[in-house]
Amino acid sequence: MLNVAVVGATGYVGAELLRLLFVHPSVKVACVTSERFAGEPLCNKLPFLHKRYNLTLETYGADKIASIADIVFVALAHGKAMAPVHQLVQLGRRVIDLSADYRLPSAGLYQKWYRTRHLHPKLLRKAVYGLTEVHRADIANGGLIANPGCYPTGALLAIYPFVKEGLLDGNREIIIDAKSGISGAGSVATARTHFPDTHENVTAYDVGVHRHIPEIERGMMRMGIKVKTVFTPYLTPINRGILTTVYLPLVKSISRATVASLLKVYKNEPFIRERVEAPSLSAVRGSNFCDIFAFLAASGKTAVVMSAIDNLGKGAAGQAIQNMNVMMGWEETLGLAAPGFYP
Amino acid sequence: MLNVAVVGATGYVGAELLRLLFVHPSVKVACVTSERFAGEPLCNKLPFLHKRYNLTLETYGADKIASIADIVFVALAHGKAMAPVHQLVQLGRRVIDLSADYRLPSAGLYQKWYRTRHLHPKLLRKAVYGLTEVHRADIANGGLIANPGCYPTGALLAIYPFVKEGLLDGNREIIIDAKSGISGAGSVATARTHFPDTHENVTAYDVGVHRHIPEIERGMMRMGIKVKTVFTPYLTPINRGILTTVYLPLVKSISRATVASLLKVYKNEPFIRERVEAPSLSAVRGSNFCDIFAFLAASGKTAVVMSAIDNLGKGAAGQAIQNMNVMMGWEETLGLAAPGFYP
Amino acid sequence: MLNVAVVGATGYVGAELLRLLFVHPSVKVACVTSERFAGEPLCNKLPFLHKRYNLTLETYGADKIASIADIVFVALAHGKAMAPVHQLVQLGRRVIDLSADYRLPSAGLYQKWYRTRHLHPKLLRKAVYGLTEVHRADIANGGLIANPGCYPTGALLAIYPFVKEGLLDGNREIIIDAKSGISGAGSVATARTHFPDTHENVTAYDVGVHRHIPEIERGMMRMGIKVKTVFTPYLTPINRGILTTVYLPLVKSISRATVASLLKVYKNEPFIRERVEAPSLSAVRGSNFCDIFAFLAASGKTAVVMSAIDNLGKGAAGQAIQNMNVMMGWEETLGLAAPGFYP
Amino acid sequence: MLNVAVVGATGYVGAELLRLLFVHPSVKVACVTSERFAGEPLCNKLPFLHKRYNLTLETYGADKIASIADIVFVALAHGKAMAPVHQLVQLGRRVIDLSADYRLPSAGLYQKWYRTRHLHPKLLRKAVYGLTEVHRADIANGGLIANPGCYPTGALLAIYPFVKEGLLDGNREIIIDAKSGISGAGSVATARTHFPDTHENVTAYDVGVHRHIPEIERGMMRMGIKVKTVFTPYLTPINRGILTTVYLPLVKSISRATVASLLKVYKNEPFIRERVEAPSLSAVRGSNFCDIFAFLAASGKTAVVMSAIDNLGKGAAGQAIQNMNVMMGWEETLGLAAPGFYP
Repeated sequence: MLNVAVVGATGYVGAELLRLLFVHPSVKVACVTSERFAGEPLCNKLPFLHKRYNLTLETYGADKIASIADIVFVALAHGKAMAPVHQLVQLGRRVIDLSADYRLPSAGLYQKWYRTRHLHPKLLRKAVYGLTEVHRADIANGGLIANPGCYPTGALLAIYPFVKEGLLDGNREIIIDAKSGISGAGSVATARTHFPDTHENVTAYDVGVHRHIPEIERGMMRMGIKVKTVFTPYLTPINRGILTTVYLPLVKSISRATVASLLKVYKNEPFIRERVEAPSLSAVRGSNFCDIFAFLAASGKTAVVMSAIDNLGKGAAGQAIQNMNVMMGWEETLGLAAPGFYP
Repeated sequence: MLNVAVVGATGYVGAELLRLLFVHPSVKVACVTSERFAGEPLCNKLPFLHKRYNLTLETYGADKIASIADIVFVALAHGKAMAPVHQLVQLGRRVIDLSADYRLPSAGLYQKWYRTRHLHPKLLRKAVYGLTEVHRADIANGGLIANPGCYPTGALLAIYPFVKEGLLDGNREIIIDAKSGISGAGSVATARTHFPDTHENVTAYDVGVHRHIPEIERGMMRMGIKVKTVFTPYLTPINRGILTTVYLPLVKSISRATVASLLKVYKNEPFIRERVEAPSLSAVRGSNFCDIFAFLAASGKTAVVMSAIDNLGKGAAGQAIQNMNVMMGWEETLGLAAPGFYP
Repeated sequence: MLNVAVVGATGYVGAELLRLLFVHPSVKVACVTSERFAGEPLCNKLPFLHKRYNLTLETYGADKIASIADIVFVALAHGKAMAPVHQLVQLGRRVIDLSADYRLPSAGLYQKWYRTRHLHPKLLRKAVYGLTEVHRADIANGGLIANPGCYPTGALLAIYPFVKEGLLDGNREIIIDAKSGISGAGSVATARTHFPDTHENVTAYDVGVHRHIPEIERGMMRMGIKVKTVFTPYLTPINRGILTTVYLPLVKSISRATVASLLKVYKNEPFIRERVEAPSLSAVRGSNFCDIFAFLAASGKTAVVMSAIDNLGKGAAGQAIQNMNVMMGWEETLGLAAPGFYP
Repeated sequence: MLNVAVVGATGYVGAELLRLLFVHPSVKVACVTSERFAGEPLCNKLPFLHKRYNLTLETYGADKIASIADIVFVALAHGKAMAPVHQLVQLGRRVIDLSADYRLPSAGLYQKWYRTRHLHPKLLRKAVYGLTEVHRADIANGGLIANPGCYPTGALLAIYPFVKEGLLDGNREIIIDAKSGISGAGSVATARTHFPDTHENVTAYDVGVHRHIPEIERGMMRMGIKVKTVFTPYLTPINRGILTTVYLPLVKSISRATVASLLKVYKNEPFIRERVEAPSLSAVRGSNFCDIFAFLAASGKTAVVMSAIDNLGKGAAGQAIQNMNVMMGWEETLGLAAPGFYP
């Protein structure tokens, strides 16, 4: 059994990691940390785990965790993960960081978007971007995996087949219109997530300034193309899920058949499903699946691609475990095979 | 035109008062206050009022308000209303207090349940409990109306016909099981009202200790009967509405026909509707209506009565305006005639 | 008092018309029809209207309605409105048709998209498209108003300022990504609107084939420009509201200040509100407002414009009553002044 | 591997069975049937199972199923399960019937409540009521398990500790007030479950006539006590979950400590969790857990007990699999160990 630790266990991403790791046949959760609730039984904060986990929340300590765990999942807020991740890597542990701290390729870009100086630019450059289906080989050998953000996961998996085939026109903007559930905003109550203001409401937010913009643009550069994006994220009154629609300018007119055939790049992927109609969040809820659908605008010059993921699954904890499986050389579906929830 | 002020205008009750007062043909909102947002345009905090109100939020000042307004609606949190209400009454204004501060009949009881010393016990004893259909005559002459809480309104209107006919058995407990929307918890974000923890969830809260228990029991005493209550309130994932089921022990077996006929006491009430089947919150949403339905348990010894109200309407702002109409000798439906929302 | 009839009164649009007409100071609802429920009291089907309306649902009869009503609102399904509208116009009544039957400019186009032969192409050509803010003068004199669809209303009001200033590039596609509440799907239960499949779900539908596509494109032609659209509608789990984002290719780079200033065309409109940040459906719910916000993509060549409406308000019944007010030469806000619902 | 069949696989209960059976280490789903969709790939009807199941829906045939499957789960509507269940038992298969057809102890009672003549009264008398924690021994040897209804499961597990200790007063009514999610109404769209009429609404239904009344009363008789119930079920706008509050008249006054200690009867149960505060549906969603909480009314003569279950989990598919595990002599948690979903 591989011993793992979850640093920052009481947020939604931590909770989802614990839910999924519980059924992983080769892993034991050896340590869970929380600075706010250290000393309390885990199940006081996460009652759904009662009679399943019997752990106490601990304060974070690099040495202690390095001595207990082989792989560490860090599920802290951005800015707070930077130092612990560095410490754990220094101590020789492999780390999967679910924060944003090691996703961008340079300290300068990080500082620009997160308004925080990056303390470990060297490690930042070494981190592997953990979009599994695209960077599998690098992940297998990675010491530090920067697990992708939820929006970038949904957007990049939709864009990838078009970049791969050289069809995306880098001279025009791509438009990304992404509808997210509220768990993406985290587990701490805020005015934006107060029930009566969120329920029966849909609204865009962080228009033009969302921090996933550079992550998406760099994600495309990692695929080999530089494109400007217009990114509009929305809060919709659901718990889980991101439905992303990308409008892709093409370098040439292509046929409907071609558009559909492009998704075949994912044919053998265990977690990506080519759909022949618009996907539903209800089909991916609680799973590590990404359902994708593509069609052609009437003009023939714009592809419209939709992806559906669970933001806590493929958009966070699921992909993190998938990456762990890749790192360990295990079957990629280990512990992740279960279908999601319906209804 | 009657000039009114709304003290504490930016919460959900304040917002509902402003929504309703806007269409009241005989009233002008002359002043709105907010300690937190004083100086800001009202519509910055309540964007739905943009292009309808052009007021600036002011800090509360008793003299200023007394000089501007004939009637003052106080929509502050409990504890915070006590002093302003007293000041305004001293200055000769008629006040409708939507907080809990003047609802209980004695300072001792207030202190026991609200853990705050009541500063104005004399005024407390003079306050009129504003359950319109039951205390209309007193309200008409009242200087200070203690507008009922949302749960007490739904429960007491359901219980009243049985007390009136002497059918309620005071030696046994009545059970009140009440399902509320989330706006009842107020407009300030809290852990309890964070969307992902509230959505797709139903939970009871404040079991056995909810502050509306003494208000309901005193409400029944004002009708002339002393009964113990078991009161269970729930949060359900909707914005507006309280569906209350009361299980009433009867002094004798009665017939189904009798149960139904009891509701005729409300026949001429403009805001109470006798229903012949279980009521829906969707029929009262956004209105000042209270829909009531009664049936008999198989034993014939227990009446089951359901009431549906909008907690912000009949359960707060709607009833407050109804009380103002009574105080002014106006038609009771003035400004309140509009049906609610469907769907 | 103007006597009006509502043909097709029991659907959501009919219900909203009745809700709004009840508070209209110059109108009396003289007749309500329903083929399915004729003979039943209106309030059996629409319990929220109990103790407010005392009408019985009637079968439709052209002569009877023409003899009772000065203006007729037709809220039937598309295909079913065509003949009654024609009859009533023949009988000299002014008609506001809320179906799609008279919105497209030619019988051919209607047949192509609705797969039904249009029986009255001559009347079709005479109908006035009722987008109030754009076609006010024609509406004032119109005998038959084709009330716009919900999506076209939200999209066209967002696009209009850019067409008016000649900034929209007709050689490129505009992208319209519109998130709708479920009431837009009508009041009849279908698999698509079954609660457990709709709740906690977001999905696109009718991709590339939605019948509002030609209505939007013709709406732009009526403004003087021919542009192709990519239109993606979504169902989101709310009752009311459409949040529309349009991505507009511009003929030239413009500044942020210019984008913002374009919305001043609506400065004196009583129902359109220029917003300085992304609009929320919660601010327009239950009202006739359209909140609009515009910003510039980083490239400077694409404007992103968002509009928020209540699909039953400005997107249907509200705009219909606004059009009636224009037709009658009344103040446009008559009966529509009330703010919407919050929360 | 045990081969199982799911008869009636496309409803919500069928879907949940397939979700759970997929991760069961000792079971293979060998056959899925659907009369409406026979011939179609399972995943066309249940897209969330895509890339996980590769089965085609078949028509039901007793011989075929008996030849393939060792245990058969029947998830048909009541009335439709009666004959297939009988056939399969005749052919020597062990059957877990999730319909209501074999839950009541006599054909007469069945006919009274379900208005259908029972065709197999002899088998009816032999069926074992599958409330696992109460009837474990009988289930182990049972040939036909009548899997309990969702409401009876939640209610009876809450009541059981009080009956066991002889504290329930059989001379007075018990009151059961149960709030259900909408999936309990099934997967077929109906007016009652149309999104806009269900969302933002709470309503009671089948007041006094719900078919789970006799099941609950017989369930108590199986525990050894005869009591009358007042049962009020509600639809609340969530997908999954039943929160049940039972108000239990006691034969004598007991202390708070006694009430709490009664729940210790469940201490070693893997799926029942004693809670020290009001339970939340969010803690049991997607799981086979039943969370229970008990407290004492102020009078000391009424116990108030709350239970939270997932109606599709412990209330249907989860308990069915738990029963299969008991029947096979397996660890009871096999395939059911996973925690539910949070958030």
